[in-house]
Amino acid sequence: MTASIHQLRRETPPSLDPMMALVAEDMNSVNSVILERMQSRIPLIPELAGHLIAGGGKRMRPMLTLACARLLEYSGVRHHKLAAAVEFIHTATLLHDDVVDGSGMRRGRKTANIIWGNSASVLVGDFLFSRSFELMVEDGSLKVLKILSHASAVIAEGEVNQLTAQRRIDTSEEQYLEIIGAKTAALFAAACRIAAVVAERDDAQEQALDAYGRNLGIAFQLVDDAIDYASDGATMGKDLGDDFRDGKVTLPVILAYARGSDEERAFWKAAISGHRTSDEDLAHATRLLERTGAISDTLERARHYGQRAIDAIGPFAKGKAKDALVEAVEFAIARAY
Amino acid sequence: MTASIHQLRRETPPSLDPMMALVAEDMNSVNSVILERMQSRIPLIPELAGHLIAGGGKRMRPMLTLACARLLEYSGVRHHKLAAAVEFIHTATLLHDDVVDGSGMRRGRKTANIIWGNSASVLVGDFLFSRSFELMVEDGSLKVLKILSHASAVIAEGEVNQLTAQRRIDTSEEQYLEIIGAKTAALFAAACRIAAVVAERDDAQEQALDAYGRNLGIAFQLVDDAIDYASDGATMGKDLGDDFRDGKVTLPVILAYARGSDEERAFWKAAISGHRTSDEDLAHATRLLERTGAISDTLERARHYGQRAIDAIGPFAKGKAKDALVEAVEFAIARAY
Repeated sequence: MTASIHQLRRETPPSLDPMMALVAEDMNSVNSVILERMQSRIPLIPELAGHLIAGGGKRMRPMLTLACARLLEYSGVRHHKLAAAVEFIHTATLLHDDVVDGSGMRRGRKTANIIWGNSASVLVGDFLFSRSFELMVEDGSLKVLKILSHASAVIAEGEVNQLTAQRRIDTSEEQYLEIIGAKTAALFAAACRIAAVVAERDDAQEQALDAYGRNLGIAFQLVDDAIDYASDGATMGKDLGDDFRDGKVTLPVILAYARGSDEERAFWKAAISGHRTSDEDLAHATRLLERTGAISDTLERARHYGQRAIDAIGPFAKGKAKDALVEAVEFAIARAY
Repeated sequence: MTASIHQLRRETPPSLDPMMALVAEDMNSVNSVILERMQSRIPLIPELAGHLIAGGGKRMRPMLTLACARLLEYSGVRHHKLAAAVEFIHTATLLHDDVVDGSGMRRGRKTANIIWGNSASVLVGDFLFSRSFELMVEDGSLKVLKILSHASAVIAEGEVNQLTAQRRIDTSEEQYLEIIGAKTAALFAAACRIAAVVAERDDAQEQALDAYGRNLGIAFQLVDDAIDYASDGATMGKDLGDDFRDGKVTLPVILAYARGSDEERAFWKAAISGHRTSDEDLAHATRLLERTGAISDTLERARHYGQRAIDAIGPFAKGKAKDALVEAVEFAIARAY
């Protein structure tokens, strides 16, 4: 515990470098699987999928599968295909998300739906999703299939839940946590958990890695939702204020609304309903978020889940893998500063 | 063979009634699974899914799984969950198809994308797709998982292929057959094949049922594509001439284009490019299709595949199940008249 707290106050900014270094060789194999299995006789499929997959993503989720397998000293290669399957599920959801949100930018590039249209994005997403299940079937573990098919259903439920909550200022912190727990944290949890399955560890270790991934995923999304108001487009790789204009009720807004005056609440209500979407309105919203401490408290909540993630892997042996997993949490939180 | 030919020339119009009667009890169980497993804490999911699922579909694909299981005298209940999984895959693709095509009517009702929007249709489709894999995982057969995950990838490939071919008058009959083989026949084939897996039959019987389903699926789609020009909206349950206005190059168009004069080819080129989409243009197209024999020859091609479907199950024992499967083929073809 002391070590963890110390690390949360480190001098040099935390980064994903240690985790990347730890799994570099494995990641080469995963990348080969990804490249090979996104191929198709239909040229549009690898073209569109490649745009997003090669587009500078961090490969956070497959990297977690690899790092957790390393933590458990797993020495096989089964996790390469499964990590690729996890990345395919993630890529499929990104393609569909961008259609749902009408997004124009991701990872600093035009989105696939802008270049090839919504239809192609929907269908190539479906292809990658199917392909991910083919990869899991090849691996042959029904336990892994159960974990990832369930995670996929939960993700879709979370996305629908988010759609239902959109433009509803009365969304509660509990509902918000349920949404991000489903749409983001479920896949982080599954990505980590399957490492314990391939390493044939007991249920307690499976659950520990699940808890690590789930809490990291929640922290990650909380910080993402803070960054949407506190960063600039170039740093973020997507358009600033997207959530604001889409009427997404994220935690910063929930806190600012709860803590605001009647007048401020009227502003938020109008903004989330889509009646206040100018740059001026966004600037006003950002000022309110700052003044009510909504951004800093969203980050405080993120640190809480980050600490839970770190504590979840407390019982595992010390070493490079554990250090890298701890620093990944610190990185996820420090991105906001 | 003689019996089959005799049945293709029967006096009373063929129907799905014998197949429905054959599997009525099993279908009640499948419907229970479908209703139970489309539920979710997020009310929009069962609401939207239920609109399409309860909307008067024939349940053709799960019915085929049940009828093939009956043909093999399978006496268990594993196929109930699997037939529901097949219907979920089909429903997910319909939801996504209607978004891709911007369709407004299906099965005589407004489409989900019109009522709830494209975003909800995409996400609920994703949910049903994930749920179908959860059902397969519960059954626990890796062989079934392999067949259906592969079919799903092939379907998505076929849909992307169709999107690429859209508005391209130079699409060949071979390309068209590849597209419908993927987008339609692959799931028919898989639905039939998995019956042989649960009944633990040998590879030859698996392949025979696969061939039955595949050829039936091709016949089914050929007739669908003919009906799009030869029926009226009320009979068809969707808008007449949708394919024409969407610039879909189906076999009737391919044949009329190949057999037409230079002037007619110029018309088809303009129409498929989207420059001739009035009711007048559609009427002209229909006249050209009639005169070149494109519709009747599309149906002739359908009969060819239908006969192949019937012959594929030739080696199986005579009885009610086989009769029902034969009549289902005849029904698929006779729908056009």
